[in-house]
Amino acid sequence: MKILVLNGPNLNFLGIREKGIYGSKDYKDLLEMLQKKADDLGIELETFQSNSEGEIIDRIQKAYLDKVDGIVINPGAYTHYSYAIRDALASVLCPIIEVHISNVHKREEFRHVSVTAPVCTGQIVGLGLKGYLLAMDALVMEIKK
Amino acid sequence: MKILVLNGPNLNFLGIREKGIYGSKDYKDLLEMLQKKADDLGIELETFQSNSEGEIIDRIQKAYLDKVDGIVINPGAYTHYSYAIRDALASVLCPIIEVHISNVHKREEFRHVSVTAPVCTGQIVGLGLKGYLLAMDALVMEIKK
Amino acid sequence: MKILVLNGPNLNFLGIREKGIYGSKDYKDLLEMLQKKADDLGIELETFQSNSEGEIIDRIQKAYLDKVDGIVINPGAYTHYSYAIRDALASVLCPIIEVHISNVHKREEFRHVSVTAPVCTGQIVGLGLKGYLLAMDALVMEIKK
Amino acid sequence: MKILVLNGPNLNFLGIREKGIYGSKDYKDLLEMLQKKADDLGIELETFQSNSEGEIIDRIQKAYLDKVDGIVINPGAYTHYSYAIRDALASVLCPIIEVHISNVHKREEFRHVSVTAPVCTGQIVGLGLKGYLLAMDALVMEIKK
Amino acid sequence: MKILVLNGPNLNFLGIREKGIYGSKDYKDLLEMLQKKADDLGIELETFQSNSEGEIIDRIQKAYLDKVDGIVINPGAYTHYSYAIRDALASVLCPIIEVHISNVHKREEFRHVSVTAPVCTGQIVGLGLKGYLLAMDALVMEIKK
Amino acid sequence: MKILVLNGPNLNFLGIREKGIYGSKDYKDLLEMLQKKADDLGIELETFQSNSEGEIIDRIQKAYLDKVDGIVINPGAYTHYSYAIRDALASVLCPIIEVHISNVHKREEFRHVSVTAPVCTGQIVGLGLKGYLLAMDALVMEIKK
Amino acid sequence: MKILVLNGPNLNFLGIREKGIYGSKDYKDLLEMLQKKADDLGIELETFQSNSEGEIIDRIQKAYLDKVDGIVINPGAYTHYSYAIRDALASVLCPIIEVHISNVHKREEFRHVSVTAPVCTGQIVGLGLKGYLLAMDALVMEIKK
Amino acid sequence: MKILVLNGPNLNFLGIREKGIYGSKDYKDLLEMLQKKADDLGIELETFQSNSEGEIIDRIQKAYLDKVDGIVINPGAYTHYSYAIRDALASVLCPIIEVHISNVHKREEFRHVSVTAPVCTGQIVGLGLKGYLLAMDALVMEIKK
Amino acid sequence: MKILVLNGPNLNFLGIREKGIYGSKDYKDLLEMLQKKADDLGIELETFQSNSEGEIIDRIQKAYLDKVDGIVINPGAYTHYSYAIRDALASVLCPIIEVHISNVHKREEFRHVSVTAPVCTGQIVGLGLKGYLLAMDALVMEIKK
Amino acid sequence: MKILVLNGPNLNFLGIREKGIYGSKDYKDLLEMLQKKADDLGIELETFQSNSEGEIIDRIQKAYLDKVDGIVINPGAYTHYSYAIRDALASVLCPIIEVHISNVHKREEFRHVSVTAPVCTGQIVGLGLKGYLLAMDALVMEIKK
Amino acid sequence: MKILVLNGPNLNFLGIREKGIYGSKDYKDLLEMLQKKADDLGIELETFQSNSEGEIIDRIQKAYLDKVDGIVINPGAYTHYSYAIRDALASVLCPIIEVHISNVHKREEFRHVSVTAPVCTGQIVGLGLKGYLLAMDALVMEIKK
Amino acid sequence: MKILVLNGPNLNFLGIREKGIYGSKDYKDLLEMLQKKADDLGIELETFQSNSEGEIIDRIQKAYLDKVDGIVINPGAYTHYSYAIRDALASVLCPIIEVHISNVHKREEFRHVSVTAPVCTGQIVGLGLKGYLLAMDALVMEIKK
Repeated sequence: MKILVLNGPNLNFLGIREKGIYGSKDYKDLLEMLQKKADDLGIELETFQSNSEGEIIDRIQKAYLDKVDGIVINPGAYTHYSYAIRDALASVLCPIIEVHISNVHKREEFRHVSVTAPVCTGQIVGLGLKGYLLAMDALVMEIKK
Repeated sequence: MKILVLNGPNLNFLGIREKGIYGSKDYKDLLEMLQKKADDLGIELETFQSNSEGEIIDRIQKAYLDKVDGIVINPGAYTHYSYAIRDALASVLCPIIEVHISNVHKREEFRHVSVTAPVCTGQIVGLGLKGYLLAMDALVMEIKK
Repeated sequence: MKILVLNGPNLNFLGIREKGIYGSKDYKDLLEMLQKKADDLGIELETFQSNSEGEIIDRIQKAYLDKVDGIVINPGAYTHYSYAIRDALASVLCPIIEVHISNVHKREEFRHVSVTAPVCTGQIVGLGLKGYLLAMDALVMEIKK
Repeated sequence: MKILVLNGPNLNFLGIREKGIYGSKDYKDLLEMLQKKADDLGIELETFQSNSEGEIIDRIQKAYLDKVDGIVINPGAYTHYSYAIRDALASVLCPIIEVHISNVHKREEFRHVSVTAPVCTGQIVGLGLKGYLLAMDALVMEIKK
Repeated sequence: MKILVLNGPNLNFLGIREKGIYGSKDYKDLLEMLQKKADDLGIELETFQSNSEGEIIDRIQKAYLDKVDGIVINPGAYTHYSYAIRDALASVLCPIIEVHISNVHKREEFRHVSVTAPVCTGQIVGLGLKGYLLAMDALVMEIKK
Repeated sequence: MKILVLNGPNLNFLGIREKGIYGSKDYKDLLEMLQKKADDLGIELETFQSNSEGEIIDRIQKAYLDKVDGIVINPGAYTHYSYAIRDALASVLCPIIEVHISNVHKREEFRHVSVTAPVCTGQIVGLGLKGYLLAMDALVMEIKK
Repeated sequence: MKILVLNGPNLNFLGIREKGIYGSKDYKDLLEMLQKKADDLGIELETFQSNSEGEIIDRIQKAYLDKVDGIVINPGAYTHYSYAIRDALASVLCPIIEVHISNVHKREEFRHVSVTAPVCTGQIVGLGLKGYLLAMDALVMEIKK
Repeated sequence: MKILVLNGPNLNFLGIREKGIYGSKDYKDLLEMLQKKADDLGIELETFQSNSEGEIIDRIQKAYLDKVDGIVINPGAYTHYSYAIRDALASVLCPIIEVHISNVHKREEFRHVSVTAPVCTGQIVGLGLKGYLLAMDALVMEIKK
Repeated sequence: MKILVLNGPNLNFLGIREKGIYGSKDYKDLLEMLQKKADDLGIELETFQSNSEGEIIDRIQKAYLDKVDGIVINPGAYTHYSYAIRDALASVLCPIIEVHISNVHKREEFRHVSVTAPVCTGQIVGLGLKGYLLAMDALVMEIKK
Repeated sequence: MKILVLNGPNLNFLGIREKGIYGSKDYKDLLEMLQKKADDLGIELETFQSNSEGEIIDRIQKAYLDKVDGIVINPGAYTHYSYAIRDALASVLCPIIEVHISNVHKREEFRHVSVTAPVCTGQIVGLGLKGYLLAMDALVMEIKK
Repeated sequence: MKILVLNGPNLNFLGIREKGIYGSKDYKDLLEMLQKKADDLGIELETFQSNSEGEIIDRIQKAYLDKVDGIVINPGAYTHYSYAIRDALASVLCPIIEVHISNVHKREEFRHVSVTAPVCTGQIVGLGLKGYLLAMDALVMEIKK
Repeated sequence: MKILVLNGPNLNFLGIREKGIYGSKDYKDLLEMLQKKADDLGIELETFQSNSEGEIIDRIQKAYLDKVDGIVINPGAYTHYSYAIRDALASVLCPIIEVHISNVHKREEFRHVSVTAPVCTGQIVGLGLKGYLLAMDALVMEIKK
């Protein structure tokens, strides 16, 4: 079983950017947490981060061609307007879990709308970096279903 | 550690109501899954279901007075308009996780808005009954934080 | 054949409340008219009125469990915002006719929207207490269909 | 007692157009049902169908001049935007019942608004061709009131 | 002269809930202030608090039947969406004063709208618990008018 | 100098329809007033009334081909949605004055918008049948300009 | 018979400001046209122009106290937002005609709304300075009515 | 193979009306171009133009009854609000191509919405009279599919 | 202790303007009631009325410089759009009570919004001239707090 | 004569992605169809596909510098929000035809808006891959104009 | 070269009002900074401040008549609704720079809209009192252009 | 002191694209002006232009890591929708000035909204290429503050 954890714009700046909102762990810490979790679950993990909408779409398409079993995606700010990423996710048949570190519903109005959520399996919001780990648990359960 | 899992209107009709959306497990099955999970986590579990907005608020207030450590809530359709439940949740200091069984973002427009999410810690959406179990995991992690 | 006629908030105040809009017959008069009509149609009639959203949902669920053949419902003001009652009605498989005594389209803007109508079979509006009798006729025809 | 049953655009295509929504009976079947009902009620019946907004207004005005006792109207799609038909109906003093065959509230957003309903006595929605018969019953009761 | 002071959802949590907004006096303190004021004014006082929309409507109807001379109501969060409470208040003929402890216009957008105010005599907003006392003064003046 | 006075739907029902709004003079009275005014102004007058959007457009096109010098138009309810009449008026090069008998800004929301006014020279509103006479004065002045 | 012609902000800049829209005649020319018209009609004329909302309200109130028989007002840009001028006009009992020199419906969106028109008798739009003269004719006819 | 090319309001004024937008060729030129194209394609052509919404619906229904193989329609301004034409088109089973001569997206806001497009096969916009010829090509391909 | 009671546009026309809404007492009566109340409370009273937005702002600024202890303001129609008065009130540090004589929530839509309320301490609505007296009571209590 | 056919995000997944909507031909098949068409038309063809908004803009700018004679563009999901692509297209002087394979007006609300269409010459929608061929025909005619 | 620096409502309260937003320098300090800058630029400076919309319009008109070469304006809160000031600015032919001390885009929703900016040359926002100095630099450059 | 001047999509086409709006100087001219200004100010200058949203974000992050002292950014069309660039700017702590060459408030509706301005220090709009120079002056002053 192979999954992809995909992070969108500015998530490489975790621990640097707005610590009050995102916490003080950085992107490297996140990758370690993800790898450890993958090891615990006994699954293969690929990770990818990009600030570019196009590269994120490319990576989603690659995942499809590579026959990845599931995707965890935090599309960052693209969540709120990237219909192009939405279309890419809609063409992938495996389960997809959308994750947001902060509780987007507590923040600016524009963050309350997700254009990608309707084409995902589910969404985990506001649970910090733990949200990714829960998403991996959920993904494994979905894939096995 | 003691937590409350609170279900709103029509969730007692799980397995009866719209199986295409909610699956075929019934409310009793859910309660068993929750108890088993609580046992695994070594925590005390209370559950409550009501179709009445007022009783849900009463129960949230009771949880506060009982010093419950965390709440998992699926407010059902009240999610979309009950500012009264929102106010009750806002007066409780423990972590709260909102759960929706189906992916509300795939359904009618009115289900895309949660008036309760802004006063919760986080939200888990679209992951079926598993969402409750993940929420319990998350809650334990939040409480220990 | 057994049907339920369900009245929502303030309909027990018929004949008391805003007579210019609702007429001078009271709730007891309505019950008599309904029973007489049921007798004429040779069907069994149950009636229920409550000001409580939760009790209305409970009663709809009970009707499902009791295998009622059809429901006439006037959800009163809940018509305009109770997605919880809507969800309850959606889980019931029998025909449902929504009735409004006054012509809601002649009144305040907020009364022009019915959140429950999309899950009912049909709707009868503005025909006074006669609307209930027509709804019973319609229900019998729907059930026999 | 003389009543007019007036059908708007595309209703002459009943049984041809979108059978899933409107059923398989055709316009001629409807006319027969209406005549039979009129005979049962012992009233005089006139019917009219047109695809033209202007002709519908002309016919409503003629009904006024002919001193028709009541009107049943299904304005078809004109329901949703014809303020001109609304104005014509508003100048007629007899009771008017608006009928829709399908449950418009289950369909496209634009069908949820009726610009003619506020100047009618009442509205019957979603009860198929039976809706016309119920409207005739209602009209007779209104006229006798 | 007999008046009713009616409090809606979460107001029993005064002094517990969001002290920065509502102050530190609790619901019992409020009741004492109200009784003292009633004694000063030489009027009879009834009080009621409920988290349930249906019970609030029941209590308003009871007040009508008991021939109460005036009502002070703080509908809490129901202020913003309970058309059912609005309808109940509209059927009562005595003066009604709506009270809000905090200045709702300084808070979230949804609190800026009151669906109940249009059927009340007047509204007192943002003056803390004193608002109830001023409302009682106002009510006595209105009743004597 | 030749002008056309064009009246839209329901204006043939002047004096019949809603006298509180439109006054008690009928369409024949209006025609006499218009002819008398034309005689005073020494101009040729053509008049036309139709309930049909298509016929109104046909008549506007005929006016263009007949080289009419100016048009006074009261599009009735078509004012508020007939982009087809708007397009016809836009293809005519002579001055056009839009007239409304009642003050549309005092009435329903939908009457506040005119889709035809932006392609007319000017608009006279709320001055009763006198509005037509003032429009004829204005038209003569515009044509002579 | 005594009437007041009241001009709002920037109308003293006629002939200076945006000639393409307002023409090349200046405010003095307008005053002369108005006086000549008043002489023709055999009525007494008062005129007033101010850029100040408060002074315009003061002047409307003075007209009321002076028992002016009618008012022609071009509120300039205040047309679109001055509810204070609207309230002042609403307290005056004589006929009021609102005039706009340009066709406001051809211009920016914000000019399509008049908050003052609903409390005037009628409105004349887009007919240049002639609009004032027609308004005076209309006013005399209204006063004599 | 037989197709119908149907033109809506004001299209008979091609070459007369707003040449800057629609070009200088007139309706007769268009008919010749269409016939020549039909001859090239070896198909039978029927054409129809009307300013009347009702006649357009009549003609669409006739096409259905005549078993026309495809329709090219330019509904003119009815594009933007005629739900009645939409319903007529929806009842026809053959391919339908909507054509607009000008690029409606460059023009007024109201022209950006097509209520008829959702029930057509496709749409060709902004390519002048050539749009009709391309639509005929497309139609033949669709029919043969 | 010194307070200012500030009245906005058209309030000098109390008793003249729309008596059905504002009652028959005039502005002079109001001033006497206010002075009598101030004497009862043993406080110094200043009053001011102006139809001019600028003068109202000037007066608010003067109150700040004069170290007034509290302000009662009825901004009249400026309530609904004067962000300039809002900014002036926001720069004053003493308690401010906004008063409206009529129940603005029963009237036109535009009167439901107050742009000044968010920078006031509280608001008293719909209690007639008594509202000013209650506001003075409230102000004294706020100042002493 | 040299033209560019430019495809936006996810169009490289034709035949893979949502076959129900886009058909089963893949991107390679499309390229072959385009080349064959170019050969038939005797013109030079360049093609480009990218998932990246920036690369699409770069390619449009290159086309300008290369003096391409015309562009066919399917901006994919960028159609609905890429004002940056719109600006790039606006700086190019040659004819541009926008193509959509599916009938976007039949799909989600967000697909009904094209921010790029207002700066294109025309648009072809819903005609499948044939839309590209028709666009090439149209482009050649536009260029020759 | 002569320029006018015009300040709107509440800017005379600089250094008094909301120091967190506007800083601690007062209006006199601003005037000194402006004069020093004018001296440095070798230009003549006029300044004006008023809380009155009418006086601001008067002053803009005077600037036109005095042949001022350029205007720097901070319309304060009038920025957001004064179409009357907008019209006055539109009639002035010299360059105009709008200045806001605070970053209005970080503040309340209503401050995000400027109705005056569309008739100015440019706008400088959020740069504190320095914004005025930069505006003077910009104005001199614009005038010399 | 080191600053970055960052230009978004299509700004490399300055002098090519829409000269009526942006003037005839090209991007190279701009760079020379910027360098000359930097030399005058005695500061170090870096410049960057990209059509790619992702590369712009990368460059902003690099500026943070390089400890740049300030940023001037013209995000081009991304101004109006790139929440991803907004998030990147929000994570940078140095002063940021947003520049627009044209007066965006005079142009299409969509250009009136800036999603990036709320996270910048200030904004300079409509002053042509001089806007960049003023922004550099402002930046130096901000940095020294």
